[in-house]
Parts: sequence; structure tokens; C-alpha cells
Amino acid sequence: MKSIIGAGLALVFATSALAQPTAEQLETAAQLRDQALESELAWDIVESLTTEIGPRLGGSEAEARAREWGRQLGEELGFDRVVVEEYSMPYWHRGETSIIMTAPYEQELYGTALGGSGRSPRLRAVNAEIVYFRSLRDLMEVEDGALDGRIAFIDGEALVRAQTGAGYGPANQRRRVGWQHAERAGAEALVVRSVGSSNHRFPHTGMMSSDEGEWADIPVIAISNPDADHIRRLHELGEPIAFRIRSTAAWHGEVTSGNVVLDLIGSERPEEIVLIGGHLDSWDQGTGAVDDGAGVAITTAAATLIAQLPERPRRTIRVVMFGAEEVGLLGARAYAAEHLGNLHNHVLATESDFGAGPVWQLVSNVNPDANSTIDAIGHVIEPLGVIRGGSNVPGGGPDIIPLAMAGVPTLRLSQDGTDYFDLHHTPDDTLDKIDPDDLAQNVAAWVAMTYLAADTDVDFRPDSEAISE
Amino acid sequence: MKSIIGAGLALVFATSALAQPTAEQLETAAQLRDQALESELAWDIVESLTTEIGPRLGGSEAEARAREWGRQLGEELGFDRVVVEEYSMPYWHRGETSIIMTAPYEQELYGTALGGSGRSPRLRAVNAEIVYFRSLRDLMEVEDGALDGRIAFIDGEALVRAQTGAGYGPANQRRRVGWQHAERAGAEALVVRSVGSSNHRFPHTGMMSSDEGEWADIPVIAISNPDADHIRRLHELGEPIAFRIRSTAAWHGEVTSGNVVLDLIGSERPEEIVLIGGHLDSWDQGTGAVDDGAGVAITTAAATLIAQLPERPRRTIRVVMFGAEEVGLLGARAYAAEHLGNLHNHVLATESDFGAGPVWQLVSNVNPDANSTIDAIGHVIEPLGVIRGGSNVPGGGPDIIPLAMAGVPTLRLSQDGTDYFDLHHTPDDTLDKIDPDDLAQNVAAWVAMTYLAADTDVDFRPDSEAISE
Repeated sequence: MKSIIGAGLALVFATSALAQPTAEQLETAAQLRDQALESELAWDIVESLTTEIGPRLGGSEAEARAREWGRQLGEELGFDRVVVEEYSMPYWHRGETSIIMTAPYEQELYGTALGGSGRSPRLRAVNAEIVYFRSLRDLMEVEDGALDGRIAFIDGEALVRAQTGAGYGPANQRRRVGWQHAERAGAEALVVRSVGSSNHRFPHTGMMSSDEGEWADIPVIAISNPDADHIRRLHELGEPIAFRIRSTAAWHGEVTSGNVVLDLIGSERPEEIVLIGGHLDSWDQGTGAVDDGAGVAITTAAATLIAQLPERPRRTIRVVMFGAEEVGLLGARAYAAEHLGNLHNHVLATESDFGAGPVWQLVSNVNPDANSTIDAIGHVIEPLGVIRGGSNVPGGGPDIIPLAMAGVPTLRLSQDGTDYFDLHHTPDDTLDKIDPDDLAQNVAAWVAMTYLAADTDVDFRPDSEAISE
Repeated sequence: MKSIIGAGLALVFATSALAQPTAEQLETAAQLRDQALESELAWDIVESLTTEIGPRLGGSEAEARAREWGRQLGEELGFDRVVVEEYSMPYWHRGETSIIMTAPYEQELYGTALGGSGRSPRLRAVNAEIVYFRSLRDLMEVEDGALDGRIAFIDGEALVRAQTGAGYGPANQRRRVGWQHAERAGAEALVVRSVGSSNHRFPHTGMMSSDEGEWADIPVIAISNPDADHIRRLHELGEPIAFRIRSTAAWHGEVTSGNVVLDLIGSERPEEIVLIGGHLDSWDQGTGAVDDGAGVAITTAAATLIAQLPERPRRTIRVVMFGAEEVGLLGARAYAAEHLGNLHNHVLATESDFGAGPVWQLVSNVNPDANSTIDAIGHVIEPLGVIRGGSNVPGGGPDIIPLAMAGVPTLRLSQDGTDYFDLHHTPDDTLDKIDPDDLAQNVAAWVAMTYLAADTDVDFRPDSEAISE
């Protein structure tokens, strides 16, 4: 193996010179970048989506309207091919949720049902004392049946803000699998501290994980950080605490969802696809502005600026507006399944799905031979305040996971997510939270990257044998 | 008249020298100030009130628990006399509120019923198209009956943030009197843009004004700024917009409320009262931390520090925890009525009721002869970052209005209210919004001021004839 790696490294140096974009390509990329900084197109797109469609839960009628909006938009903006690729999915919605603290006194709490959670028994609420757990780990140690007739409450800490959003995954475990332990222990409902960094009184929703395909029978509710703080203080005073919970959350059978696929067909290598995009669905509490109207707007606007060039880049640029991301990457899985026979032609894939903060870093995971091309892209977007980060960093965004797992090369224009989990999955994810200048900076980075990736001859794929398949 | 004014001015100069606090008094005031900066008492009080009592709407059972809490607190802290002065009041509460946009598509809005508003007809919601008004003024011009069968929506602008909170009064008119014009025009309900500066998705509640003792029959709902922005954008697109509104808000007859009065009885002039305080009630959406748990905590803590001196100041220091401020200054009116025969003995009155931001200015409205004493107080609290503002500025806080109207001298320790209307009257008014250091700075200013006002011989009252009544 060592000799092969050695040979590979030799090849890098041999091809690096060839892998550089031409001066003309770099000049075009820089012009597109600067043009994007002056463009209001992305703002207009996200304003239109959030205003004319509003919240659009995966599988809902609103998401169907969003697909039609995306299809019409693609045609109006001059894409060469606009296709809606439908798939079937199970549909969950929250219905109505109410959580009231009933002891030591009555106070309404701000809670939201978690995706995949169950409903309270018909005609009655769950009305029980809580058992307080400092963390998920504490609940995991409880014996089967130990919580019979009670409500489990998992506290924890407010998410620590980080540019990379690093704390989200670990904290998210209480949201994802807490219900499995609560149900096993016999709890009538589970309440968790929101997985979010906001000290505003918004609960953070999100999908739970299924347990080998099974979902919760009990209501599972996240309450806001200030509400969880309140419960913690009362608990520390030794007060017995009780909640009354009503939830009509439920699964509602199979429905149709879909991905909207907008193509600019390549002038020389139309079969080779540079895939960019965002997800069209949103959670239902806000209007899905930062998650992920912004990503749809940024990538669609970037492709549209390229469409206005005198000629198409060599490769096809594909913007995918993925459906049903929030509820389990269902659109992404459907896309990968639909295009299974053609994934080898996806030369690069990347998604914008981390809000509307400025891009601060470019990371990639491509054939090492092609790193110098990524470096050249990094150089063009450096004036936007973008660092060239690691060249061996997997992950191009949530909806890219199935493609990356199939070997499609990825890169990521990392956004500053310091405030992202203040807004993400809460009612506060609304248009006013987007800074138009930051949004334009994103488009500038995306347009330069996308143009250069699509107009180069350099192959980003790990196995050069796959190029001409 | 001119000669009398001239005589008055002469008197100022004649008594100024006498009006200065002694070096010993100034030294004690400075020591109390510095001690307050290290004290956590105010924090403990506001934490206890918001945690152990929670939301406490005027007239509610929770407000009654708050009075008992205040009474016990006063006894524990060593006040010389603790009295609950009860009064009767009409009780309104919001019940349940729901506002859903039903056209051009369905979306839940974040709304809150305004105080004094009516309920939707039993067994059905108000379900109607809206008529959009850019401002209250536009609605005022509508003819009687012109809105039959429709819902009036008054837009406006998000409140401009100001250190003094200056914009609140004018903006508040749509909340206060909008319903009178909507009802006159035949609207089935009124919806208004929240009177607040927050771009978070919290609606701002608050009391409406009665129309000669009559209250609204129709539901009146405030929606958050992001929701109002959304409606404005849809309106500008020319979309017909409809709402479905349910509200079970209603008046529920007469109930008992009360003021909690805590006295440190003066050592030389016990009949002379320096009145400080805050209000004990809160709106029901949050836990009333900044409005006005902070004010109760600041003034109670300040008086408690004075109570720990070797001896009582000459005058009586009275802390009043007013009831039912939010719903019409009912506690304040009851206090003034209860003490009508003794108001001449109230030598100074001032309330802390503008959040928990730092004190930045001292203004006053006392006998000009006493201004040099106020100046001396200002000098002691200057190191806290407090400016000596105007000496002819009326108003000592909302609950002081009835006393000020009866001629009681006032002063005000103005707090920085830049962020106050982000939180005020919203679900987001919770303990975590208070900065403990800012709270301690407030206590430092209050304790120095209260001590000097209570230990001086200087009369703040306009008519020196009234002193010994």
C-alpha cells in the first residue's frame, strides 16, 4: 500500500500545475464574486419563499406549494431543465401541544413536541409529578418500570455557542434517544431542555431517532432554556413539581414529497454534475428563513448569476432543493436512490444549510490531485474573509451525506454558526434574522466556487477511472 | 406672583448651606453604597419571587401568594411594621388565545390578548378577512360600520430603542384606544402590531384603555413584530389575508388584591415617610423579573441594608410592594385613597419600575430649597456612573402618579431602558434577563439616596407649612 500512496503523492505534484484554473477562469470567478456582492437576488428568493409559502414541514401541503414555487422559480430564472422528483414518505405533525406546570403552582411553560413523538391519551392529559434527571446519562441508568405513572424531565445545559456549532451533536442526544429510555422506564411522558443556545423563551424542536423503526408512544416535549432554568431552580428548592401535558402529535400515513432539481446543462461535459443546493422544507414553528430558506436562496442565486454568463460552464451545475430534510434526510435519500446509477457522474456535491451567517472557511474532501484547484477557489474567495481550511474534511452538508457515503467528493463553505442555534428549529427562525449583506457574501463565495468547479477539467473524484463512466 | 418667586429664590440661597447632609451622613451613605455593590440580597429576592411565585397577574391567586411572600419577607428581613392593605378590583384574565392566518395560506401567528379585551363568540372563532391599516390614524378615519364582518389590523413600526424609553407612549396608542375605533367601525376583532422593540417572536401584552368605563366586546390581539412584518409583506404583495381568532379573555367579577407595606420606623420623625417601592404584580406571560420583580428587589434590599445600621434614620422608610399596577395602577390608587389624610407626611416618593438596567441619571421634582440635598445625593452616587439630571422633572414612577398628583415630592433614579421594551410584557421577561451586577448597582444608588433622604432634616415638600401636619 505504501508504494501506491507514494505513487499517488508523486501524481499530485505532477498534476498540480495542470490543475490550476486559467487566468481567464479566475478573472470570471472574481467578476461573479463581485457581482454577487451587489446582487439582491438571494434576498428576493428567501423573502419570497418565507413570505409566499411560510412554514413548510416535510410532507405537508405547504411543502408541496414550496415545490411548485421552486419549479416556477427555476423556469423564471432560466434554468435549462427543471424537474420535480417525487417520493413517498410517512407524515408526522405536531397538532396541538400544551404543557403547564401544575405544582408547586400553575404556570404555562413554552414547549414544543419533538418530531416523531406520540400523543397524550385521547380525552385526557398526562398529569403527573416529574422525576428530575440532571442529564440523559442519569435517565439511562434508571431501571425498567421505575418511572411508572410519572413524567421524566431531562435537564442539561444551554448549548454553548461556537462558530462551528460543535456542541450541537452531543447535546442533541437527549432529544434523539431520551424517549427510548423514558418509555422503557415506564414514564407517561418525557420533557427535555431544548437543545439550543438561546436564552429567549423559544423551545427548539427537531426529529427524534426511531428505535429500529419504532417511534415513541408517549408525548415528548422540549421546553425553552428559561423554562428549564425555572424547573431546575424549583427542583433545587426541593419542591415537588408536576406537569399537565396535552399533545395531539401523531403520524398520518404516507404522503408525497419531492426534490426540485434545477440544471444548467454543461457545454462540454453535460453528464458531469456539480451539485449544490439547500433544503426546501422547514420546521413548522418559524418560516424557515435561516433553516434553510437561506441555503436555497444562496445556491439558486449563485447558479443564476452563472446562467447569465455568455456561455454555460463545461459541466452541468445542478441546484437541488431537497425535500423533507428536517424529518430524516428523506429527500436526500430519495435523491441518492433515484440517481444511484449516475452517482459516479457527480463530480462534486455541497449544500448550504447552516444559516445565513458569513462564510469563514472552505474545507474539502476531494482527490488530493485536485487540492490545488480547491486552493485556487480559496484564493478567489479569500477577500470575502474566507480561510482555506482542511483538505481532508468529510461532509458537504446534511443532504450530501448519502452522496458522500457513496463516494461523491464534497466541499463545504463553512458559515459562522455562532448564533445559529439561537434561531434554528424555533419560532424565531424568521426573515428578519437574515442580514442581507451576509447573505450576499455567501452568494459571492458560492458563485465563485461553483463556477470554477464546473468550468475546470480537473477531476475531484478519488478514482480517475470513474471520470468517463 | 413675581415677587413670591423672587422670595422663593432668595430662600433657596439662604437655606442651601443648611441643606447639606453632614460629613457623617455622607460617609454612611457611601459605605452603604459600597456595601450594596457586594450584596446579593436583591438577586436573592428577585430569584425567590420569580421562582417561588412565578407569574402573578393583578387580582389572581398568584398575586395573593405574592403578597404573603412579601409579608413573610418583610418580617424575615427585620422591618418594624409589615401590613397588607387590601382593596377590591375587577379581574380580567386572558384565558386561551389563538390566532391563525388562514389566507393566503395557513400559518400560526404569535399573538396575545390585550388586557381588557373581549372573547370570541362562544362555540365559534372569529373567521374573517382583514382590513390593513398602516397606522392607528388610518383606522381612526374609517366610517362607522365600514368594517362590518371583518378584522381590523393596525400595523405600525417596531418601537425604536431609546435609553429613556421615549417612544413607548406614542406607539402605545394603538394598543390603548385602537379597539374603540375598530368596534365603532363594526370590526369583529382587532389585531395590532406589538408595542415593543424586540425582533423576537414574542407578542407584547398590556392593558387597553376603557372608553368611559366600558371595555371591548371584541377580541383584541397583539402579534409579534416578525409576525406583523410577515403580514405587511403579504399585504404589499396584494394578497387577501384572513385570520381565525379564538379568545376566551373575559372579566371575572370583583376580587381582592392588596399592597404590601414594609416600614422602618424613623427614630426622630417617625410620622415623616420616605416612600420607595416597586410593584408586586406582573403580566402573566413571563415571570415578571424585569417588570417588576427587579424593582421590588432593589428597593427592599436597599431598605434592608439601612435596617442593618446601628440605628434607624430619622424619618420612616416605607417600602411599598404595589398590587395590580399592570392592570391600571389599582394598587397605587388604593394606596393614595387609603392614606389620603396622611399624604402631607409623605416627604418623598419614588419607585423602581423600569427594568434591571443600570441607573444612569438622577432627576427630581422637589422644593427648590431642597435641590442642594438632591445634588449631594447625586454626588454620592456619581461614582456609580449616575448623572445629576434635571431638578424640575415630574414623575417618580407609575405607582407614584397618584401621590405626585396630590403634591408629594418625587425623584427618579432613571435606569437604562435601551433593551427594556425587548422584554417588557412578553413571555421573555424571565430571571435570566437580569444582570446581577447591574442589579447591585441599582441597590447601591437606591440605598445611598434612601438613607440620605430619610436621615436629613431638609424638607422636600413645596409648602413648608405642611411639615408638621
